[in-house]
Amino acid sequence: MRIVRYEHGQDSGFGILHDEVINEIEGSSGKGLYESENSFPLNESRLLAPVVPTKVVAVGLNYRDHAEELNMEIPDNPIIFIKVPNTVIGPGGKVCYPSQSEQVDYEAELGIVIGRTAYKVSEEEAEESILGYTCALDMTARDLQRADVQWSRAKNFDTFCPLGPWIETAVDPEDLAIELRLNGEVRQSSRTSRMIFKPLQLVSFVSDIMTLHPGDVIITGTPPGVGEVKPGDELEVEIEGIGTLNTSITI
Amino acid sequence: MRIVRYEHGQDSGFGILHDEVINEIEGSSGKGLYESENSFPLNESRLLAPVVPTKVVAVGLNYRDHAEELNMEIPDNPIIFIKVPNTVIGPGGKVCYPSQSEQVDYEAELGIVIGRTAYKVSEEEAEESILGYTCALDMTARDLQRADVQWSRAKNFDTFCPLGPWIETAVDPEDLAIELRLNGEVRQSSRTSRMIFKPLQLVSFVSDIMTLHPGDVIITGTPPGVGEVKPGDELEVEIEGIGTLNTSITI
Repeated sequence: MRIVRYEHGQDSGFGILHDEVINEIEGSSGKGLYESENSFPLNESRLLAPVVPTKVVAVGLNYRDHAEELNMEIPDNPIIFIKVPNTVIGPGGKVCYPSQSEQVDYEAELGIVIGRTAYKVSEEEAEESILGYTCALDMTARDLQRADVQWSRAKNFDTFCPLGPWIETAVDPEDLAIELRLNGEVRQSSRTSRMIFKPLQLVSFVSDIMTLHPGDVIITGTPPGVGEVKPGDELEVEIEGIGTLNTSITI
Repeated sequence: MRIVRYEHGQDSGFGILHDEVINEIEGSSGKGLYESENSFPLNESRLLAPVVPTKVVAVGLNYRDHAEELNMEIPDNPIIFIKVPNTVIGPGGKVCYPSQSEQVDYEAELGIVIGRTAYKVSEEEAEESILGYTCALDMTARDLQRADVQWSRAKNFDTFCPLGPWIETAVDPEDLAIELRLNGEVRQSSRTSRMIFKPLQLVSFVSDIMTLHPGDVIITGTPPGVGEVKPGDELEVEIEGIGTLNTSITI
């Protein structure tokens, strides 16, 4: 099932995507959610970021091939950092190139979307906390990341976390092809099976630190092939079984 | 003026504290806010964290005397990191000592509370974005901070950002005494005049990266004297002209 967040005329909300048609979701999380009889064509709507998170928790170095490429040791535990809600934009959104940076890089990532509040959940319990998966970009001002040593500034410019196009609830994240294209050219191409820490491990690890709320997202690290963007560039993140997230770079 | 967030019976909301009496605030930020005629005694209410932030932006090493004590170079620009909303607790709240850590430290800090949305504001404009100031604790799992190099895990355990007791709107933050007491003993004692980057500079710097929303908080770094806590300890952060934030440590 594909869960979208849409804008349609004056309306916005969550819906289920059936081919080219969006069915509105009604109800409340307390009383149960259901598909209403209201529906409208996808091509008359604008898709928004599929979640409104209180936080995005990101994981550093989490692909075995990327770690090898960089000649870096495999870490003993996930290294996390935070992207604030301001960074989130939706499919078709524009990443603003900050004037403070001279090197902004793309990093294509699988995003885990939390569906149920999770605190100190085991790996076994983690599955129940997950609503589904989405495509993500962890945009990074690489020069500022190096200068600060701490990654928070480099990762937290407004618009630096495109998410979408939707939440796919029926996909097994274990071994999916993940690809990034820059202006149509493949630059990153790997499989989620090369992750060092797997999605369920990550949910459990993060939930041992902080409560995860519905709509929160964990982005799971990037494969080899990261590189620079310039204003005017077009990015696509495609993940097998999920879909393709389009983003462009603007000043 | 002291702005509080309170819980009184089944009610909760924002209010103005006059001596020992809370006057409810009514209205909406669109139509204007005013003090209602509803009031009740402070001692029949519980004070909550005075804000509900979308993020807390924290600043590393920002006191000249602390930098000298550590023999560290004064940074060229503020080094920021993020504390997620889950870390925030109110006055009288309990910090939970995480089982993953064997060294949790207190860091007393001045908190800047944003009152008006701010994006790319100059230092001159920054003042208008600030609602007031509060006391803050930046609790830190020091051993995990060292192990990860990145500070995000160490700083983001639930309950790791006590804030309060209220927002003081009528205080000049330039040169205030700031003190931390551990079980009644003074452990940190400095003045905000020793900050390397001043509050208006910090608001401007952070707003060049990310939009600041009403209720967001910037915590401004800690003076010398940081040290360890154990379960059962009591902490007080007192800032001249603002008040005293009480916190205890629990398992």
